[in-house]
Amino acid sequence: MRPDQTAVNWIAVDWGTSNLRVWAMGAEGIIGTASSDDGMGQLSPDQFEPALLALIAPWLGKGVTPVIACGMVGSRQGWHEAPYRAVPCPPLDRAGLVQVPVQDARITLHLVPGLKQMKPADVMRGEETQIAGALALHPAFDGVMCLPGTHSKWAQISAGEVVSFQTYMTGELFALLSEKSVLRHGMTGKGWDDAGFEAGLSAALSRPDRIGAQLFSLRAEGLLAGLSPEQERARLSGLLIGVELAAAKPYWLGQPVTLIGDESLCQLYARALSVQGVEARLLPATECTLAGLASLARPLETTS
Amino acid sequence: MRPDQTAVNWIAVDWGTSNLRVWAMGAEGIIGTASSDDGMGQLSPDQFEPALLALIAPWLGKGVTPVIACGMVGSRQGWHEAPYRAVPCPPLDRAGLVQVPVQDARITLHLVPGLKQMKPADVMRGEETQIAGALALHPAFDGVMCLPGTHSKWAQISAGEVVSFQTYMTGELFALLSEKSVLRHGMTGKGWDDAGFEAGLSAALSRPDRIGAQLFSLRAEGLLAGLSPEQERARLSGLLIGVELAAAKPYWLGQPVTLIGDESLCQLYARALSVQGVEARLLPATECTLAGLASLARPLETTS
Repeated sequence: MRPDQTAVNWIAVDWGTSNLRVWAMGAEGIIGTASSDDGMGQLSPDQFEPALLALIAPWLGKGVTPVIACGMVGSRQGWHEAPYRAVPCPPLDRAGLVQVPVQDARITLHLVPGLKQMKPADVMRGEETQIAGALALHPAFDGVMCLPGTHSKWAQISAGEVVSFQTYMTGELFALLSEKSVLRHGMTGKGWDDAGFEAGLSAALSRPDRIGAQLFSLRAEGLLAGLSPEQERARLSGLLIGVELAAAKPYWLGQPVTLIGDESLCQLYARALSVQGVEARLLPATECTLAGLASLARPLETTS
Repeated sequence: MRPDQTAVNWIAVDWGTSNLRVWAMGAEGIIGTASSDDGMGQLSPDQFEPALLALIAPWLGKGVTPVIACGMVGSRQGWHEAPYRAVPCPPLDRAGLVQVPVQDARITLHLVPGLKQMKPADVMRGEETQIAGALALHPAFDGVMCLPGTHSKWAQISAGEVVSFQTYMTGELFALLSEKSVLRHGMTGKGWDDAGFEAGLSAALSRPDRIGAQLFSLRAEGLLAGLSPEQERARLSGLLIGVELAAAKPYWLGQPVTLIGDESLCQLYARALSVQGVEARLLPATECTLAGLASLARPLETTS
């Protein structure tokens, strides 16, 4: 999409470790979108501005366009550090935005800070924007949000503030175990098996303390009992999500959960929660990210 | 070492996924040793015999020298499959040896089969030889052995038989998490911190069901509380060994444990067990491997 430059009020940026995604925002919402694999992890400090301009230059006009970016771009290894804000606090705060000097006079750039929790120690960057977006879409929300992913986050939300949160390395463990460990031999391909997922989930939820033994059992059952690659893969997913749910029990026990993230992953979490009698509502991640950034953009649009 | 060929009675081989180690054995024990990185994982079927001969050729004389090999060389992806024997059974059994045809007339080759357990499904290859060696060194032994490593094994031994066993992916998880995951950023180098190890151990043993959350805490404490690389690395080790011990509790509770493996790793396990009031005895892995293979070699030496 190549929108009319004069219609672009501001630019939304989600800049993670592996990807850069940008949206041209007009009065009625999204009017253009682009992405690249210039993630924070691949760039040195002086490469950030060119990587951004490579995507957004077609949207820039004669005036100054505000750009607001969330995600790992604001980490110490990113473009410029946007120091964590400490919970309990609202997920976003205009006063916490960090303006970064840029070479190109056609833009201003603001980075969104992540959140930190001192005890137990925890951090997030990017998810605070999705949480704020979910709150913008559902202002009366009070309760528990879960953002499944590489590093899944569980957050307790009350009166518009993130009260506490907890991170689980579930997605990263799944990738490492299914692609780099001895278990990879038994789970070639991308196949899936619902019964395998449920078996893993139930094993991990009933005996999460036995996860150390349950993992190698996958390999052994593949060798001895002819477990199929689909079954092994789905059971590994069930085991890891089950261990996460076991540890996150104080968050979801007896409460509905709002899931924000990749839809098929959220569906898995919703199924796992429903086995525990917990109702889940799904919100799409991108919609939340944009709603969160938009809540910060409004004053910038009028003042820039 | 280049021993007198006539003094070599037989050749012991420990052939794992990553390494090949060989010993020339004489009447009084070891008279030569060699190793290479021609592990099972790097070889196609026709490369095994040349890889072996590259190390043992200097030891071969005019007669036929028996070669006995344990480890992954006998797996389906190895030189030739030596089918698993089912527990409960003695760790080694001469009748279970699989003779493999070889091109070179100066040797005979026998592969040691691994052990399998149908419920819960589990397998071992190589450790059965160390267990047999430990029993050869301590014939009256009855109780629990633990073989820490990439895939740690716990085994219940009674009346000379392996009654049951259980595998934990502890060593492989440590390697993946410390080298390939987000945690790697906080644990550069090979440093160590005893207090960090004990903190991880205690956290995992008291709440093994919370391992999912405890892992990312390492990263967050590194960022927020200035945890040193030594502390992070040692605490990760403590967490993973702690989760293993939590699941292996039925093996060690109220019983002394015999540890077989790399000495510094066994020392860590011994320390972890002593915190639980469990006494540990250490046996060196290579001595056990050779004692196990020697228990099979005696009849072959006289009949070959």
